[in-house]
Amino acid sequence: MNDHLFKQQIKDNARITEAALDKKLGLISQDPAFEKFCELEHAMRYSLMAGGKRLRPCLVMEFARIFGATPEDSLNYACALEMIHTSSLIHDDMPCMDNDELRRGKPTNHVVFGEAFALLAGDALITFAFETMAEPKLSDRQNLLAMQALSYYAGPCGMYGGQQIDLENEGKETDLETLEVLHAKKTGALIKCACALGCIAAGCFSDSERYKDAIKYAEAIGLAFQITDDILDVVGDEAKLGKKCGSDEKENKTTYATLLGIEKATALASELCEKAKAIIGKYPGSEFLCALAEYIATRDN
Amino acid sequence: MNDHLFKQQIKDNARITEAALDKKLGLISQDPAFEKFCELEHAMRYSLMAGGKRLRPCLVMEFARIFGATPEDSLNYACALEMIHTSSLIHDDMPCMDNDELRRGKPTNHVVFGEAFALLAGDALITFAFETMAEPKLSDRQNLLAMQALSYYAGPCGMYGGQQIDLENEGKETDLETLEVLHAKKTGALIKCACALGCIAAGCFSDSERYKDAIKYAEAIGLAFQITDDILDVVGDEAKLGKKCGSDEKENKTTYATLLGIEKATALASELCEKAKAIIGKYPGSEFLCALAEYIATRDN
Repeated sequence: MNDHLFKQQIKDNARITEAALDKKLGLISQDPAFEKFCELEHAMRYSLMAGGKRLRPCLVMEFARIFGATPEDSLNYACALEMIHTSSLIHDDMPCMDNDELRRGKPTNHVVFGEAFALLAGDALITFAFETMAEPKLSDRQNLLAMQALSYYAGPCGMYGGQQIDLENEGKETDLETLEVLHAKKTGALIKCACALGCIAAGCFSDSERYKDAIKYAEAIGLAFQITDDILDVVGDEAKLGKKCGSDEKENKTTYATLLGIEKATALASELCEKAKAIIGKYPGSEFLCALAEYIATRDN
Repeated sequence: MNDHLFKQQIKDNARITEAALDKKLGLISQDPAFEKFCELEHAMRYSLMAGGKRLRPCLVMEFARIFGATPEDSLNYACALEMIHTSSLIHDDMPCMDNDELRRGKPTNHVVFGEAFALLAGDALITFAFETMAEPKLSDRQNLLAMQALSYYAGPCGMYGGQQIDLENEGKETDLETLEVLHAKKTGALIKCACALGCIAAGCFSDSERYKDAIKYAEAIGLAFQITDDILDVVGDEAKLGKKCGSDEKENKTTYATLLGIEKATALASELCEKAKAIIGKYPGSEFLCALAEYIATRDN
């Protein structure tokens, strides 16, 4: 797949996702007492509609597509996942966590709305994700399996567990095994979830070969994504990244770049990309997902 | 129903709930990497197992019972609701919200585990609630409807919306209409959810007379609960309540007690209790739920 078509498809999927997210948020305003709590919706909307690559919804839609559903079938799941992801960003930026004042060049949620509203907006986005997912678009079985996947991969054994390991290891030297578990959970879990949700939307459940391949692909690109993140923090272009580099070194953080060195880390990312392509390349229509694996391993932002 | 039997049943239901909550938390420790994020489970457990009346799970189980299910059928829903409730308490106590250092005589979650872990523990309890609910005990239809109810009643148009209205009106004079919406959402929503979940566990869905009556009962006792809360803050016995009284006056808070006066507020609570009993008393086996309505309107703690 050529670069132009690839980027166009990323953009198209992001546009579809954003239109759907906007519509979902609109449902809140139908409450008869909406004007009394509209500020909560504004805080949710501020972060949910703040742009970004929409990588997770894109994975949901593309796995749905290659396994025979329409991207629209999977749109509720894609939106729900993006809400959980956004909630984690809002809470992560709060003073008691990373204390970040900027995200994607905009003031973070708590800077604009205050900490109390940021806390509530993050909480509300979690439950709103499940509300979104329960809409009767697909079968009850599918919706239930999707909710199970989302709650598991976000939950204590998934993303939140990873965040806890991250907090626990701040400023400490970390071994490779801990680093692997940390990232498999902190960023890997929602990427696995995205691929799983796409499969479920297409009727492929966890006992199917397709589902298992999707998870393997997700594991490979999830790790590649993190390794590239670590490399970019050392050698990246701040203008392209839209954020400061060198923060890992400043915080004395153990990363794939510090543990393996830039050269070996780059080789590992490219190996993982090849692995992901080998797993998914056998399915017709998987050109985009192969290009995505490549993009993730070689991206400069 | 005599007082002794009533109190025994409250205790029995709380015991069943707590045993189930303990077992659910145990599932987290089955993760192969559990030791790396066990502190998150400890923080979740600390607040989830901190006692309390377990009023919401009790309502779930009792509505399941009177409409023909066993309390055990509804236990996953009861646990899930208690997790969401506990999450809201953890986040509510945080410095950026109410900044409370004690709850039920014990240091609050963030005092023991730090703010970052308290934030994560609250988040993880929300997704863990949905994970708990998705267990295949009842039919897919029931589990899906239960998740829909939980996500809706907790969500932006439910409890979180109510919390937002509460924050917005801090230190302001509030009119009766706003106060009603505030409480219908902030505390009322999860009480309605409890009654709805019990109905769903018994196979009574939202179009049934039973479900509609359950919601009406919930609305009456939810409001009565809040009014009694406001009254106790003025005339309660601090030793029995286990907390300081007079905080509403100190914070210049508009409450049912300040808006209506103690006498009218007491009369309204008792009127609501009679209404609740009239709605639910027609169902065989509803003695406990009638006694519960009475307890809520006349409680001293």
